[in-house]
Amino acid sequence: MDKREISGLKALYSRELFESVVPFWEKYSPDREFGGYFSCLDRDGAVFDKDKFLWMQGREIWGFAHLYLTVRPEPRWLELAKLGADFIREKGRAPNGDFWFALDREGKPLVQPYNIYSDCFCAAGLAEYGRASGESWATDLAVSTWRRIQERKANPKGVWTKQIGANRPVLAMSFPMMQVWMAGVFEGLIPQPELDAPIDAALKQVLTLHLDRERKALFERVYADGTRPDCMEGRLLTPGHALETLWFIMGEAEKRGRRAAADGAAGDGSAANRVAANREIIETARDAMLWTVERAWDEKYGGIFYYMDYEGYPTEKVESKMKLWWVHAEALCAFLLAYRLTGDPACEAWFKRIQEWTWARFPDPEYGEWYGYLERTGELAHSLKGGKWKGFFHVPRALQTCVEWLDDMEGRCGSDGMYRAPEAFRG
Amino acid sequence: MDKREISGLKALYSRELFESVVPFWEKYSPDREFGGYFSCLDRDGAVFDKDKFLWMQGREIWGFAHLYLTVRPEPRWLELAKLGADFIREKGRAPNGDFWFALDREGKPLVQPYNIYSDCFCAAGLAEYGRASGESWATDLAVSTWRRIQERKANPKGVWTKQIGANRPVLAMSFPMMQVWMAGVFEGLIPQPELDAPIDAALKQVLTLHLDRERKALFERVYADGTRPDCMEGRLLTPGHALETLWFIMGEAEKRGRRAAADGAAGDGSAANRVAANREIIETARDAMLWTVERAWDEKYGGIFYYMDYEGYPTEKVESKMKLWWVHAEALCAFLLAYRLTGDPACEAWFKRIQEWTWARFPDPEYGEWYGYLERTGELAHSLKGGKWKGFFHVPRALQTCVEWLDDMEGRCGSDGMYRAPEAFRG
Repeated sequence: MDKREISGLKALYSRELFESVVPFWEKYSPDREFGGYFSCLDRDGAVFDKDKFLWMQGREIWGFAHLYLTVRPEPRWLELAKLGADFIREKGRAPNGDFWFALDREGKPLVQPYNIYSDCFCAAGLAEYGRASGESWATDLAVSTWRRIQERKANPKGVWTKQIGANRPVLAMSFPMMQVWMAGVFEGLIPQPELDAPIDAALKQVLTLHLDRERKALFERVYADGTRPDCMEGRLLTPGHALETLWFIMGEAEKRGRRAAADGAAGDGSAANRVAANREIIETARDAMLWTVERAWDEKYGGIFYYMDYEGYPTEKVESKMKLWWVHAEALCAFLLAYRLTGDPACEAWFKRIQEWTWARFPDPEYGEWYGYLERTGELAHSLKGGKWKGFFHVPRALQTCVEWLDDMEGRCGSDGMYRAPEAFRG
Repeated sequence: MDKREISGLKALYSRELFESVVPFWEKYSPDREFGGYFSCLDRDGAVFDKDKFLWMQGREIWGFAHLYLTVRPEPRWLELAKLGADFIREKGRAPNGDFWFALDREGKPLVQPYNIYSDCFCAAGLAEYGRASGESWATDLAVSTWRRIQERKANPKGVWTKQIGANRPVLAMSFPMMQVWMAGVFEGLIPQPELDAPIDAALKQVLTLHLDRERKALFERVYADGTRPDCMEGRLLTPGHALETLWFIMGEAEKRGRRAAADGAAGDGSAANRVAANREIIETARDAMLWTVERAWDEKYGGIFYYMDYEGYPTEKVESKMKLWWVHAEALCAFLLAYRLTGDPACEAWFKRIQEWTWARFPDPEYGEWYGYLERTGELAHSLKGGKWKGFFHVPRALQTCVEWLDDMEGRCGSDGMYRAPEAFRG
């Protein structure tokens, strides 16, 4: 890409974030009467369900606090983060300290805390809110929740577990992915070694077990020895998850590589090995991203499939061929980061292909925000902008992350105007 | 319809059942090595997952035993039913007697018995198998499972319940529906009053709570006073479920009406009221079927939607607009029965419309059986003929039921060749 193109994209993503997506959630999601946020918002912002899902509450707290911390200290954003933080502080937790899955509008629990991701998103939200507001209760609750998650993670659904793990002990990729992202949110709040250990474990699990280099695929569920059961769950591919996981890992390797490079510059003789090891992780993640998108791109209608079976058999999921907003938002992050770090033209080409397909279908210039669910053909399947599973999260996070990377890239263009990836990360 | 058309349909449905659907399952589903059935069958019968789901095992036992009992005593069908019955006898139950949700091929449990419908389908399968084979263990286990279901039904998911019912005490329509069908399977195995009580309760729940005559809709979840929470689950319509429930109820009212008419002929002076009451149920069910299909028919692409929101808001289910085999199979039963009993030309027209759309898309003349999942447009979404949720059940049951009704209708055509609905059931 050249500087003009990079600047144009930065302006586009920034406009979409601040003129379409953020205003939509600022306007329609706050519940000024009972606190917290409505997440079930139809195309025009109409609230079609007032229940409060803790995933969505935690994510939106994180989102507004993160804007406040990283864009500008806009009082409105802090106040919006506070609206959610106070609500989950008061109503979010079951007596044992785990976060409920769903509450009604007033905060009465509707669904048990069977889902550890409620805790993950609420912890992330409170960590960011504590950082933004300086309110120590929020940081304390975030940290204690992080520690509780580390205790619960081996048995995340507790008494609500339906799988009999002893007879098919598969490991899922979703928790390691979450662990890497959360650890980034908790930087500085928890001693770094306490964060590094789960990141190391997550990287190892994904890169040595879920990633099958021979089959060029990132499998969703694997045995502890890297093999898989020959059944639907063993063959399941979730391209959006794979791309999201891979960009988290690539981002972590960038951060670690930079730290190692700084150590090297400060005279640490062993740092060069760490720089090289992290460059290798970046290249592996780049390769796996390309394998993933080459398999998952729909040659007939464009876009990335939601679920696939490695052997091409039917999947367990009826919605496999639908095109979802978060898959495309995460794919944009994945290929922009991979291009930014490696300069690989294949990543540039995929970024542009996904960019074009996504921007022609998901954004709604009339009412703002992105649609969530398209049919395989790209036709709109549901008019919702938010629901039980779509909130203020993937779209703004992707847009903001891309703006940050594009901004960094603007500064790295050569005298010919062309982008140059940093030396340390190129193969 | 005239006699020629009725005979043509009977021949078509019968051919499809005996030359396409039954041979497919006879050929590809038996597991001769470990017992039970494979249900995950791709288009050409290839087994793509060997796990055994108890819903599917119980349904297939019922299906083959039912053919043996009602079509002809074909030894192959009894032997196939035995293959499943012996497998679930040996491997199907957890120590407390509840049926597991899923086993691996060899019969090791994979998913806990969190789902009461595993018990319902296994009980129905064993009841029919016991009747066909005369093996008393099967009948005994069926009857004890029926009784266990009656104990469990107030808390069907037990310790795996995630909903906090106290804060939103909704009643679901699925269990009453199951109750009516199962009671028919258990006729003669359990004293009739013990069957009549749950049928009465189910009819009352559906016709007075789920059915909203003012809104002309059958709601999936309602409060005990017939109102509904204003949220996604309170507004949820499942047209396929509604039509299936309504034809079960209509069939039950036909049976009860005939019993009452026989009592009347035998001199029971109070029988006329019961005849009239059951005719009223039939008419109510007919009206509700028409409301349902008029709302759920996709005017753009044809076919019946899977899920809808009463107010037209997005539903919680991403697959709402897909077209599913069972919805269309049950819709054919619903409108053929409604036409057969009432002679209503609107029911005849809907039967023909659904018949045409369904038969042009779901059956696979090349490999046999029906496809399961179509995109909204009617395009194939998945190539599977069987899976975790599709087995030897809705299609053969619907085809056989329609053949029986068409056969009955053939005999009721007048001298002009036109079909005449029985007097007692016409309004």
